[in-house]
Amino acid sequence: MRFLHTADWHIGKQLHGFSLLEEQQDAYQQLRQIAQEENVDAMVIAGDLYDRKVPSEDAVNCLNGMLVDLNRQLKMPVLAISGNHDSATRLSTGQEWFSATDFYLNTTIKQSLTPVVMGNTQFFLLPYFEPHQVRETFHDESIRTVQDGMTSILSEMTQRFDADKRHVLVAHFFAAGSTHTDSETLVEVGGLNAIPVDQLSAFDYVALGHLHRKEALNEATVKYSGSPLKFSTSEAEDVKGCWIVDTETNPVTVTFRAITPLHDLVILKNSYDQLMDPNQTFNVRPTDYVAIQLTDSAPIPNVMEDLKRRFPQIIELTRVNPRQLTTPSQTVEQIKQNPTELLSDFYHQVTGEKLSVNQKDWAASALVKAEGELGNATY
Amino acid sequence: MRFLHTADWHIGKQLHGFSLLEEQQDAYQQLRQIAQEENVDAMVIAGDLYDRKVPSEDAVNCLNGMLVDLNRQLKMPVLAISGNHDSATRLSTGQEWFSATDFYLNTTIKQSLTPVVMGNTQFFLLPYFEPHQVRETFHDESIRTVQDGMTSILSEMTQRFDADKRHVLVAHFFAAGSTHTDSETLVEVGGLNAIPVDQLSAFDYVALGHLHRKEALNEATVKYSGSPLKFSTSEAEDVKGCWIVDTETNPVTVTFRAITPLHDLVILKNSYDQLMDPNQTFNVRPTDYVAIQLTDSAPIPNVMEDLKRRFPQIIELTRVNPRQLTTPSQTVEQIKQNPTELLSDFYHQVTGEKLSVNQKDWAASALVKAEGELGNATY
Repeated sequence: MRFLHTADWHIGKQLHGFSLLEEQQDAYQQLRQIAQEENVDAMVIAGDLYDRKVPSEDAVNCLNGMLVDLNRQLKMPVLAISGNHDSATRLSTGQEWFSATDFYLNTTIKQSLTPVVMGNTQFFLLPYFEPHQVRETFHDESIRTVQDGMTSILSEMTQRFDADKRHVLVAHFFAAGSTHTDSETLVEVGGLNAIPVDQLSAFDYVALGHLHRKEALNEATVKYSGSPLKFSTSEAEDVKGCWIVDTETNPVTVTFRAITPLHDLVILKNSYDQLMDPNQTFNVRPTDYVAIQLTDSAPIPNVMEDLKRRFPQIIELTRVNPRQLTTPSQTVEQIKQNPTELLSDFYHQVTGEKLSVNQKDWAASALVKAEGELGNATY
Repeated sequence: MRFLHTADWHIGKQLHGFSLLEEQQDAYQQLRQIAQEENVDAMVIAGDLYDRKVPSEDAVNCLNGMLVDLNRQLKMPVLAISGNHDSATRLSTGQEWFSATDFYLNTTIKQSLTPVVMGNTQFFLLPYFEPHQVRETFHDESIRTVQDGMTSILSEMTQRFDADKRHVLVAHFFAAGSTHTDSETLVEVGGLNAIPVDQLSAFDYVALGHLHRKEALNEATVKYSGSPLKFSTSEAEDVKGCWIVDTETNPVTVTFRAITPLHDLVILKNSYDQLMDPNQTFNVRPTDYVAIQLTDSAPIPNVMEDLKRRFPQIIELTRVNPRQLTTPSQTVEQIKQNPTELLSDFYHQVTGEKLSVNQKDWAASALVKAEGELGNATY
């Protein structure tokens, strides 16, 4: 069994107001081409097919077209799950018909407990879930966190393992040990909402979606595919693509295949005068998206308007040397602190007392909740 | 070939804030039962499956469940089209897979030109359309009205007629000659957006959706099924249901099967004192929806709050004898005038001149446009 592992298509996503549908179509065509070249038996899409729970009609049209092409024209088996950006209910439309042509689209925990068998491999297709959904599925009120939920789900799945088959989990969550695009914040507070990689060792391969950089996790057989496109400036230097996984070898063989962006995302770190200098050339195509990191510290009137005349598709304008209006009040040590420590310090400053064990627990669960909401917005 | 003709399910519709999902589930179960009792070969659903272009997740869940039950559990062939309330794009999701189990869901004019053949019958499944869609399909800029569009579509369809088969059109539009629920207004202004019944004579049967009363058209073989539920006070006295159509006879045999409302819509025309009198009984179940037509003319403080204590599900409160604050300025003759005549009179009053032919044309097309928008909101 040989499959292509991709995720986080986010069809319909806009980059600072620019539609990415054309880029997304192009990335799909490249994935299709790779799937053919690599002679895979299936394509795995690990969640976040859409960018929004209520996608636009254009986005619906775009994704429908891709899936019809992949499964009906190319006759490629598809193994997919809903992610946190998808509406599981809306995405589930038609799933009862899809499986007739080997298109498996799981949107509930219950569905994930029945593996899809293809060749030598059992696939467990686990959609993004929240703790209350596991509580309801297993009628177990003791399940409070994603980790609790995952323990119950994995216990059910491993009972269904066929010892003669290889076992692949397709899922959409935050795996502990992974590093975050912008900062380590989520790793710190993600605690109870993150799944430790060790918990997944029963599987021969874990095909993950949720984080947009394949580098987010550095494990041999637990991998994020990352998104097929660059969705933020912090991904500007990334090489995007997909994994080709072969379960005929032991351990499984995993190789990377890159995707070339139709329009790239380029960071320009220069002064205003350099950027506007007609004699200066930059390695930017007119259709590329540009994030400008301005080195000037003085105010510049109409800076955005001016720069847009030269670089029409500016998606971000930041200053790397902002004027310091006040003395910095935060020390580097404070910035490095994790949120629970920061809160403890603040409480101590204000009340002169330390947080009790209960208070620390409350703070931790509030942070987990806030992180969950933040996570929904970001990934 | 024997089929059940229904339409205008409007799944997700609310009646003055009350969800109708429970009633809609119940009506579906009755249609399912009738289909089994009548031993039909297919169910025809002539558009407006949903009430809104972006239905709620509950509505999606509800309709998905019905269609899975009907086509996958009961193995009932389904012939359906999108209506003006549906998003053709959203509703089209999965249609490429559905036909494998004889579920035909058409959302484009192009699809309607290829008939679905079942038994002795060719079914032409024509979704709701606007003139620009016919222009684009046939690359014919001369098509300006629904009538023009229909002429082109029918010409294509009849060319595909198999003389050895019976011919059924499933469509969602305003048929001329039909009467409107609340007034004749739409008949008057509907002119160019309405399809004359004569234009449809090539078909052995025309299964229509759009208007919610089966009485809207009184033709032997061109019929609205009406909605399965009462959606407005003007439908309170209606008997809702579906048509059973048999194309083995010549002409086709059409019989009506009624649906019993789970919760009825009842009009109470009484004075406030009668309605609040504890000794007075009304033929209303506590779960019924109530439209109150108050006969009092004097102001009554907190009238709605009082009445809601007795009739919790009030969906409308009107006064049949309102206090006349001013002398009525409209005569009965004026009210009966059609909108074009009213406009002509008004123009004459203001300018002392008559409308020119061009002006009348402009007014007519503006009224058609307004009627289209009104139509979208109402049906």
